[in-house]
Amino acid sequence: MGETRRFDPEALRYDAAGLIPCIAQEVGTGEVLMLAWMNAEAVARTLATGRVTYWSRSRGDFWVKGETSGHVQELVELRVDCDRDCLLALVRQNGPACHTNRRVCFYTAVRDGAEVELMAPEA
Amino acid sequence: MGETRRFDPEALRYDAAGLIPCIAQEVGTGEVLMLAWMNAEAVARTLATGRVTYWSRSRGDFWVKGETSGHVQELVELRVDCDRDCLLALVRQNGPACHTNRRVCFYTAVRDGAEVELMAPEA
Repeated sequence: MGETRRFDPEALRYDAAGLIPCIAQEVGTGEVLMLAWMNAEAVARTLATGRVTYWSRSRGDFWVKGETSGHVQELVELRVDCDRDCLLALVRQNGPACHTNRRVCFYTAVRDGAEVELMAPEA
Repeated sequence: MGETRRFDPEALRYDAAGLIPCIAQEVGTGEVLMLAWMNAEAVARTLATGRVTYWSRSRGDFWVKGETSGHVQELVELRVDCDRDCLLALVRQNGPACHTNRRVCFYTAVRDGAEVELMAPEA
């Protein structure tokens, strides 16, 4: 406890593609909103700007969450796991986090071998 | 809402190594405990046994969480994300989730450019 050291985004453990998974959690409610990926520069930009910035694997470019939709994620605190190969971003999510317009991406539950949709898209 | 279909572990989207990330969240408190990886067989075993079972990338073998430590994760509900490439396991965690004996793996916060330890190992 109280032990500190300088945080260096380059000193995290990235996969072969230079990426690390980041879980976004709503700070007020504890909801797990989504998981996306960051490279070292996305981690640095997230900390510098306070806006959660991922690396889009499909577009091959930085992805400032909400830049086009307005559904930004304000960073409250970034946390690192014991193996330094996963991040947890505590955020304030504006609007739905999911591209389907649902509050969270994890809206499908597995119950008795069937998929059950828990949540409708927001209006 | 109410839409259902049969859940097939093989129909998830796995990475090149045949793995999918799974976030474990404590159902009572909402704490994000850890992230680990599953293959299709680990997903199937988790659902069949009710004990969260990962694939250990370091050992190259199934990893029934808590099998040696006793710190088992009882599955309450498995959820799938919109892209079908990430899982969220709602669990009841017995004892600490982290191999460092801390309650959660995300015990390090980044504050003002420094790493701050939030949580001590349990006694």
